[in-house]
Amino acid sequence: MKNKLRIIPLGGLEQIGMNMTVFEFGDSIIVVDCGLAFPESDMLGVDLVIPDITYLLENEDKVKGIFITHGHEDHIGAIPYVLSELSVPIYATRLTMGIIEHKLAERAMMSKVRRKVVKYGQSINLGPFRVEFIKTNHSIQDAAAFAIYTPAGTIVHTGDFKVDYTPVFGDAIDLQHFAEIGKKGVLALLCDSTNAERPGFTESEKTVGVAFNNIFAENQETRIIIATFASNVDRVQQIINTAYKYGRKVVVEGRSMVNIINTASDLGYLNVPENTLISIDELKNYPDNKTVIITTGSQGESMAALSRMASGNHRKISIKPNDMIIFSSHPIPGNEKDVGKVMNDLYRKGANVIFQDVHVSGHACQEEIKLIYSLVKPKFSIPVHGEFKHLKAQEQIARSLGYDSEHIKILSSGDILEFDNDKAKVVGKVQTGAVMVDGLGVGDVGNIVLRDRQHLAEDGIIIIVLTIESASGATVAGPDIVSRGFVYVRGAEDLMDSAKEVLMEEMSDLEDAGVRDWSRIKNELKSALSDFVWKETQRRPMILPIIMEV
Amino acid sequence: MKNKLRIIPLGGLEQIGMNMTVFEFGDSIIVVDCGLAFPESDMLGVDLVIPDITYLLENEDKVKGIFITHGHEDHIGAIPYVLSELSVPIYATRLTMGIIEHKLAERAMMSKVRRKVVKYGQSINLGPFRVEFIKTNHSIQDAAAFAIYTPAGTIVHTGDFKVDYTPVFGDAIDLQHFAEIGKKGVLALLCDSTNAERPGFTESEKTVGVAFNNIFAENQETRIIIATFASNVDRVQQIINTAYKYGRKVVVEGRSMVNIINTASDLGYLNVPENTLISIDELKNYPDNKTVIITTGSQGESMAALSRMASGNHRKISIKPNDMIIFSSHPIPGNEKDVGKVMNDLYRKGANVIFQDVHVSGHACQEEIKLIYSLVKPKFSIPVHGEFKHLKAQEQIARSLGYDSEHIKILSSGDILEFDNDKAKVVGKVQTGAVMVDGLGVGDVGNIVLRDRQHLAEDGIIIIVLTIESASGATVAGPDIVSRGFVYVRGAEDLMDSAKEVLMEEMSDLEDAGVRDWSRIKNELKSALSDFVWKETQRRPMILPIIMEV
Repeated sequence: MKNKLRIIPLGGLEQIGMNMTVFEFGDSIIVVDCGLAFPESDMLGVDLVIPDITYLLENEDKVKGIFITHGHEDHIGAIPYVLSELSVPIYATRLTMGIIEHKLAERAMMSKVRRKVVKYGQSINLGPFRVEFIKTNHSIQDAAAFAIYTPAGTIVHTGDFKVDYTPVFGDAIDLQHFAEIGKKGVLALLCDSTNAERPGFTESEKTVGVAFNNIFAENQETRIIIATFASNVDRVQQIINTAYKYGRKVVVEGRSMVNIINTASDLGYLNVPENTLISIDELKNYPDNKTVIITTGSQGESMAALSRMASGNHRKISIKPNDMIIFSSHPIPGNEKDVGKVMNDLYRKGANVIFQDVHVSGHACQEEIKLIYSLVKPKFSIPVHGEFKHLKAQEQIARSLGYDSEHIKILSSGDILEFDNDKAKVVGKVQTGAVMVDGLGVGDVGNIVLRDRQHLAEDGIIIIVLTIESASGATVAGPDIVSRGFVYVRGAEDLMDSAKEVLMEEMSDLEDAGVRDWSRIKNELKSALSDFVWKETQRRPMILPIIMEV
Repeated sequence: MKNKLRIIPLGGLEQIGMNMTVFEFGDSIIVVDCGLAFPESDMLGVDLVIPDITYLLENEDKVKGIFITHGHEDHIGAIPYVLSELSVPIYATRLTMGIIEHKLAERAMMSKVRRKVVKYGQSINLGPFRVEFIKTNHSIQDAAAFAIYTPAGTIVHTGDFKVDYTPVFGDAIDLQHFAEIGKKGVLALLCDSTNAERPGFTESEKTVGVAFNNIFAENQETRIIIATFASNVDRVQQIINTAYKYGRKVVVEGRSMVNIINTASDLGYLNVPENTLISIDELKNYPDNKTVIITTGSQGESMAALSRMASGNHRKISIKPNDMIIFSSHPIPGNEKDVGKVMNDLYRKGANVIFQDVHVSGHACQEEIKLIYSLVKPKFSIPVHGEFKHLKAQEQIARSLGYDSEHIKILSSGDILEFDNDKAKVVGKVQTGAVMVDGLGVGDVGNIVLRDRQHLAEDGIIIIVLTIESASGATVAGPDIVSRGFVYVRGAEDLMDSAKEVLMEEMSDLEDAGVRDWSRIKNELKSALSDFVWKETQRRPMILPIIMEV
């Protein structure tokens, strides 16, 4: 085992987000990406989710560094949490590092974390690994793929990518270098699966600029408000360019948008013509049709700026009739309804809404995936970044290119894929999972808590309280009933009175039978009340008996 | 007012579902549709939602009858609830009535409800109204539009419709009759807005049959499982036809599917060749590639048959590698993630999944809406059936046909639209709303209960219990703390111990200060604990102090 290459995904496969992949050879480990996920709908009250890094902590001495492909939350969001438990350096391109540094600074962790900015074409040597950064395109600038040279062969990890021959900023993806590496022989390709279900090619970011131009040309009499992803700096650049062309001032609204734009401007990734950006308080000095507001909230997030404008809860911006609102985004699966709600609110305030043909994806579609396979010509295909169905869709693509099941490896989180003399197989599993972060607590919301929250959310709670005299075992106060989240109006008081009678009877039966065991008393009361409530209402609230002793 | 026509939507506009529209003239009211809605995501624990019919109850004597356009839940689902408060006859086509009767029979309400089956072309006279049933097409058979002849003019209500020139069963929509009515003059058109955002024409249901044929031809070696909407009898018919052609036996699985298919077969709307349907227990007698399973669960509903098969919880059917699963449906907005989850589970079990190009909508797209406007040529356009954004999309269509804002009326639930000498305006509002049904309770889950459930779901609950001696005011037991849905593992015990100390201190301060007022004691304990918990965890669980007296 000592000198075999292992690839172990710690996240990013079961659900979108939480990307983290371990590469291990002998005594050395490197990690690619360190992302968070947003909670699934059944993770009630959870703020975010990070990968379980038990395996890294158990092998702390081996871990040489973390390489980041790009600055999206599902690739960098867990960094502050992971680096507070693990002290390793981080390698990333300049804008990516700028975004990470903002995150670290917010938590006063800058001095604790070793960081190295890496340029495209540059390589980092760590133990038996050499990691080369390769230019790609994505919906955020400075995205990188990695060529990971190991004694067992070369691995190519695309990161999140698309092929944009005419990017807004910087160069197109370095296809020549992918070909060059491929020519020399590649053991395995880890390729983005997000859009593997979609035929064809993803369009260039520049096509969105053309769409903006048309919309601005046709709407010269109204204010324009554009919602998009905070991190899509090229999109923001195109909005600013169009605004400048049409003589409009630009306001940027929404905390995450402002943060990223500041970072991007400081580092030279965004070029703002002089006197174009104004503050939100200056809006009133300009006629509506000379302004553009770029805002967060394109996913219908209830606390984001656009949602607050739509519901009339934004402190500084009110939607006006005839405002032209552009959703420069597609809803991420699961957000469709929230986005629809915001649109309805906007229409109700008299605004117009455009949401078609003003967005392109940042991920490669089927033809682009085929292109990368054809340049890299890996021996093994390892689909990454996607739900299981997306990985399967990439498998279909690989099959169409002639790969057989021996050479396509669909992994689950924790799988140890080991390479051995031209063979690759899963030889075991390490601990993985989703660690839930809720408030300040990391990992202290577990399944029991979630199950309780679900139960409470569905049917509410009824609490039975009772004071017993310890000497005699006699009930000296109660049983009383308090409920929350259970029926409230019409007939509820009658119901509670009858419920109390049921409990009184049960207690007197128990006293007669000389039952003194608290846990038995609790169980009997619970089951009597539960039966009664079910019979009367066909609901099953959580029932919590509490006994006090005097 | 006495002799003016009024149209009052009681539901169906703010959210999809809960369709119900009141037509009032003089002393007479007729109602079109009586639907339910499924709960929004913030209606925790609510089973379904029905319209508030206060207005109908207040005008009970006027209400002459309820006319139903077709047998979908969002048009018939509230009938049992409404008819238990209001005694009026129901008018519907044969299949629609069959489905309604199944619903009434389940609640032993058949003898209480007057019902009349109406044929296309037939009219019902009620007071000043004559209601004529007109053939349309939709994703369920026997759908009707209504021409409502009133002394103030003719109103056309399309119901849910599409234009299918080549329907699977029965005739195409009666376009000639729409034209004939239009020729004589129509005051207002209430037209389905569901697909008003979509350009072009909705394809014929028959195209899905062609798709099935291709899939069956290409997958002759595997079992086929098809999920679709329970009520789409034509879809089921096409699956059965294809199965018969390829010599496969058919199993129908899922309660709602079985119910509708039985009703449709009994009434002659489904033609099943002999020896084609088999029971689920007979499946084992046939080779996999000679069977088809038609099932519920196309929306990823967690309790539906397909979801249970996917998660391995179905009592009788296990997914096998190479099973071919077809989602003959599109996810309704909000269900995308659940559907994706079921697909992932199916892929994980080795099944193949097809979900593209095996479904057509039951609703008219833009060109069909234009067609109906052009045949009916109403004076007023009243977009119905859709979220606000859909109504606005139909408004755009009407504008493109030359209607101005005076002649397009976008209504909200409760608006009283009154017609007066070629004018129409909103003259007032009646009480409306969404009545929540939870278990046996109708309307007893209110906003307070929902707010509590949300709070409980987000952060859980901490209960403080305390027994006080009434004579002295001294604390004789507690304060004790019990929590549910709050942090559980790592450090939680320490936290609870410290919390208890905080409460003890607070109590001794209160005792020293001679505070005897219970509500003050409760408030002080609550606020002390809340501050402490926020400081330690940055969470805000519900805190519920309970004081007992001995």
